[in-house]
Amino acid sequence: MMNKERINRVIAKMEDRDALLISDPNAIYYLINRWIHPGERFLGLLINKNGDVSLFLNILFPFEETEGLKLISYSDTDDLTKLLTKYINKDWIVGVDKNLAARFLLPMINNKIAKSFVDGSICVDKTRAVKDEEEKQLMRKSSQINDQAMAIFKSLAKEGISEKQMADQFLDIYKSLGAEDYSFEPIVAFGLNAADPHHMPDETKLKVGDVVLIDVGCKYKGYCSDMTRTFFFRKKPDELQEKIYNLVRKANEDAEKFVRKGVRLCDIDKTARDVIENGGYGKYFTHRLGHFIGIEDHEYGDVSSAFTDPCETDNIFSIEPGIYDPQTMGCRIEDLVIVTDEGCEVLNHYPHDIEIIE
Amino acid sequence: MMNKERINRVIAKMEDRDALLISDPNAIYYLINRWIHPGERFLGLLINKNGDVSLFLNILFPFEETEGLKLISYSDTDDLTKLLTKYINKDWIVGVDKNLAARFLLPMINNKIAKSFVDGSICVDKTRAVKDEEEKQLMRKSSQINDQAMAIFKSLAKEGISEKQMADQFLDIYKSLGAEDYSFEPIVAFGLNAADPHHMPDETKLKVGDVVLIDVGCKYKGYCSDMTRTFFFRKKPDELQEKIYNLVRKANEDAEKFVRKGVRLCDIDKTARDVIENGGYGKYFTHRLGHFIGIEDHEYGDVSSAFTDPCETDNIFSIEPGIYDPQTMGCRIEDLVIVTDEGCEVLNHYPHDIEIIE
Repeated sequence: MMNKERINRVIAKMEDRDALLISDPNAIYYLINRWIHPGERFLGLLINKNGDVSLFLNILFPFEETEGLKLISYSDTDDLTKLLTKYINKDWIVGVDKNLAARFLLPMINNKIAKSFVDGSICVDKTRAVKDEEEKQLMRKSSQINDQAMAIFKSLAKEGISEKQMADQFLDIYKSLGAEDYSFEPIVAFGLNAADPHHMPDETKLKVGDVVLIDVGCKYKGYCSDMTRTFFFRKKPDELQEKIYNLVRKANEDAEKFVRKGVRLCDIDKTARDVIENGGYGKYFTHRLGHFIGIEDHEYGDVSSAFTDPCETDNIFSIEPGIYDPQTMGCRIEDLVIVTDEGCEVLNHYPHDIEIIE
Repeated sequence: MMNKERINRVIAKMEDRDALLISDPNAIYYLINRWIHPGERFLGLLINKNGDVSLFLNILFPFEETEGLKLISYSDTDDLTKLLTKYINKDWIVGVDKNLAARFLLPMINNKIAKSFVDGSICVDKTRAVKDEEEKQLMRKSSQINDQAMAIFKSLAKEGISEKQMADQFLDIYKSLGAEDYSFEPIVAFGLNAADPHHMPDETKLKVGDVVLIDVGCKYKGYCSDMTRTFFFRKKPDELQEKIYNLVRKANEDAEKFVRKGVRLCDIDKTARDVIENGGYGKYFTHRLGHFIGIEDHEYGDVSSAFTDPCETDNIFSIEPGIYDPQTMGCRIEDLVIVTDEGCEVLNHYPHDIEIIE
């Protein structure tokens, strides 16, 4: 079923674009409630400013008739650019999907099938960035599962287990809790592996005194959770580790307290960054504070110095400060939050306290 | 380590392009033997016709120094288009990656950082289409594992098991046989579900008399296998089913016999299609005969009526005719082949005979 309310919100953001050509399966799911994964083949949802909506779909993929949606089937041997000229006017400004692949876009541009091509995703992305009630409920539930899962994941940490052996058990646990999949490949990092923010689980074995960093998320009815906790394995943190942990925790909590409708995203980033910089670890906080999330684990919208937009009620994003000191430790504490008029609703309830896994 | 031989083969195909900007992680792995998955961030391998090779990589991703490769780091707050102008000349014709996302390509085009942008992937793709010795060995091994796996997968078919329950066991089996992953999500289709060529495993339960279609592949050291077999569950096929099965088998085997260096890909497709058309089922063979395969399960190159190039020695592709009759049955028989000067080497050895699972 088409979600007319969402499509109308998208059209209201089109400005001088005459049409949008959206190809991202996530955006299409958001707008017409159908998952279509066309592999390497072209998939396009053409949204005309006048409200007409058409779907270009390879004939290989079965599709039920959908009210209000015109289906335009093509086959592997059709000339796609020619087909598009029947539906796209030469005088139009067309907003194309930010993910549209060059192999589809270059022939459109080089054959001049429209007056100009600009980014079209922004209209969908800005709509998706403000979650509706249905989405907020799904995001809450997804994070609730993630909280439960974190308690189980942590309990898998035993001396000698490898990061991979631990991570390989997560998917079944998520499924047993009602999730359908990961929202991203889980990160498990032992010891100084945690000082690489993108470390992937490998054969490293857990030793007494290691840090255990777990950065995980699941999908519940298509909606993503994402949370990080950093534990200590069978040994209290030393003074320096405790200092780093508490700096990251304060950065997280100060930022969460700062969030509310109208506050600029860059200032939320700065709130956390100032804490870490004042603690002397600024150069070890190497990434943005957070990212928007929903149907995808990373959606349009950053909590970073580059993003000067004010946040809006019902934005959902991560708050994930970290310190990655290759000599001492890596640490990250991440929650998801929903912006409200008065502050924010933190979706994760797994505690922030220093926790020693015994 | 950079693979200079492969890079030189790519440069030899550049024609009037002054540089290539390659962003596909698979192509980059092929050329510099490093897996980099940049998520939503830009990744670009710039290959200058003069032999210089540079890698644009977000500073978040650790990267070891590599001989002959210039690393150009950028951060989330850098202006990427501006950075590229330092390395790309305004007068150049730049061949960009076919998968380069519009969000990176449109600013380059709209800021006119080069004279023109054309497809650049074709230079890499045509190089990748001709496998070298190392690749052929890995492809053989990957398909050998797939043959072994098929025998095990088939034995999981029991009355009442669901497609999903069956498919959920495949990954562990592949891993136990030495593969690291799927090459694509496995297809298991019971009964008339097999008449949808892109059916995904669902809750459908296996019944006596069902067809069991299994289309699966694994990755071995990064190289993909892909094979389909169609079994019958505890009941001999009826006359019509047997006719359909034998038509598909003959289409597969006639096409495999026809393959050799210099034969046109469209004519291989036609060889199989003629068999099925002459049998009266032409309209139920709804897809191309095959696709090229290697590091990716679907690579550049089709065995279809649209692909009139002759095949070359050391091309590797699938031969996968099918009949999808929604009233009677769906059936597909797929092998991978390596083109040789004299014919082809079929990589799959699991038999084509009608097999009844008891």
